[in-house]
Amino acid sequence: MSTCQRYPFVKGHGTENDFVVVPGDVELTPDRVRALADRRAGIGGDGVIGAAVDADGRWFMDYWNSDGSLSEMCGNGVRVFARYLAEQHDATFPLEIATRDGIKTVTRDGELFTVDMGEPTILADTKVAVGDRAWPARNIDLGNPHAVAFVDDLADAGPLLDEPSYDPSVYPQGVNVEFVVRRAPHEVAMRVHERGSGETRSCGTGACAVMVASALADGEGPGTSYQVDVPGGTLQIAWTPDNRILLTGPAVLVAEGTTDL
Amino acid sequence: MSTCQRYPFVKGHGTENDFVVVPGDVELTPDRVRALADRRAGIGGDGVIGAAVDADGRWFMDYWNSDGSLSEMCGNGVRVFARYLAEQHDATFPLEIATRDGIKTVTRDGELFTVDMGEPTILADTKVAVGDRAWPARNIDLGNPHAVAFVDDLADAGPLLDEPSYDPSVYPQGVNVEFVVRRAPHEVAMRVHERGSGETRSCGTGACAVMVASALADGEGPGTSYQVDVPGGTLQIAWTPDNRILLTGPAVLVAEGTTDL
Repeated sequence: MSTCQRYPFVKGHGTENDFVVVPGDVELTPDRVRALADRRAGIGGDGVIGAAVDADGRWFMDYWNSDGSLSEMCGNGVRVFARYLAEQHDATFPLEIATRDGIKTVTRDGELFTVDMGEPTILADTKVAVGDRAWPARNIDLGNPHAVAFVDDLADAGPLLDEPSYDPSVYPQGVNVEFVVRRAPHEVAMRVHERGSGETRSCGTGACAVMVASALADGEGPGTSYQVDVPGGTLQIAWTPDNRILLTGPAVLVAEGTTDL
Repeated sequence: MSTCQRYPFVKGHGTENDFVVVPGDVELTPDRVRALADRRAGIGGDGVIGAAVDADGRWFMDYWNSDGSLSEMCGNGVRVFARYLAEQHDATFPLEIATRDGIKTVTRDGELFTVDMGEPTILADTKVAVGDRAWPARNIDLGNPHAVAFVDDLADAGPLLDEPSYDPSVYPQGVNVEFVVRRAPHEVAMRVHERGSGETRSCGTGACAVMVASALADGEGPGTSYQVDVPGGTLQIAWTPDNRILLTGPAVLVAEGTTDL
């Protein structure tokens, strides 16, 4: 697995969704990604990001899941990557970052980074269940599929050790399931079960789906904003008048060093 | 929590029991230890080790659990610490390392490190249970208390999400519970539920307790050795003719860098 090459890395997180970022000349393979992301035998992270450059000379977020699979986009990861580019490569804002889901524009205000997540797609209502409890759910797509269920108490979803049940004809590729409670006007709190990862401390696209579902439930639409509290922190999400979702949150780099993983 | 001081760290593991090691001049507090050990918002580890020096000028392993509490000794941690001292401070072997449980002598043979864990204390048999299943257990103390139960299959202990039941009059401070199966002559495999940590990938003193229980069950005693397979790797354990337990296993440093946690 190791080639005895020693290379730099940075570890960072956005609302406790954490990533190992390595330079683009480090060859990422499923084995190396799993080794880097391993929380005990490696450095540890929910994902690994290669700081690559695309054919147009634009920074490219080469995003990998901890299991060694590729992913199109990660709303928390792109903020961490933007901070990495600012600190390691003097990148300036607004910053265009290429991803497998297209070009994302990131802006910065001090410790907070905002990424334009694009337009939400609102689909027909569906339902989800945990054990013998079931809830109606909003089906919202933000490049990946989400089912958003409003619950009386976030504990109602239980320990979430297993994947919630959903309609496989609606979500043939699986789904990220969010459970939401209201906290105040334009403020909600959520838990998320991510497809393939289990319950996590934060999910950027999940928070955006929750915001859209909350606005719709409040009779609102484009031109409003919400605070979404996730287990790992707080995100601010705006739905612009021209129907785009802007995700704002922190990005923290906690360590930098070298590894031969 | 942060003092904006930037300081070096090394991350390493022994059979996937992992540690963050920092220089002795970094002030370790429960808050800082928890921040360093946090697997998502920090670097991540089962423990944090300060490379301190005692009053006699001997290296001192200032060992902290990930929850910010102090611990006397860690059989996997002391090997990782020894490798750190060799690579960062040119320490040579045999190496005496002071711990809160006294001075431990570590030797090295290539990638393998051996630590003299001292004498085992064999107490009256007891029993442990998981759900409605119960097993007789050997009560063995290696500086900390262990209950060792032989099972037909390691899966018999179930998912081990909860602490196994034990006799609180025998273990008033709690206990580490090991489940063991035989694999071959002088080779056993184990799982461990660590007091305060839950199931882990490896426990050095637990493997030593398992070795002693296995030797006793085989009608053996001082002057024998066993291979003990833990979920995170393989340990070799010798019970010397003069009644000391020698724990041999790998120690790997996977990353080094700086942090301001």
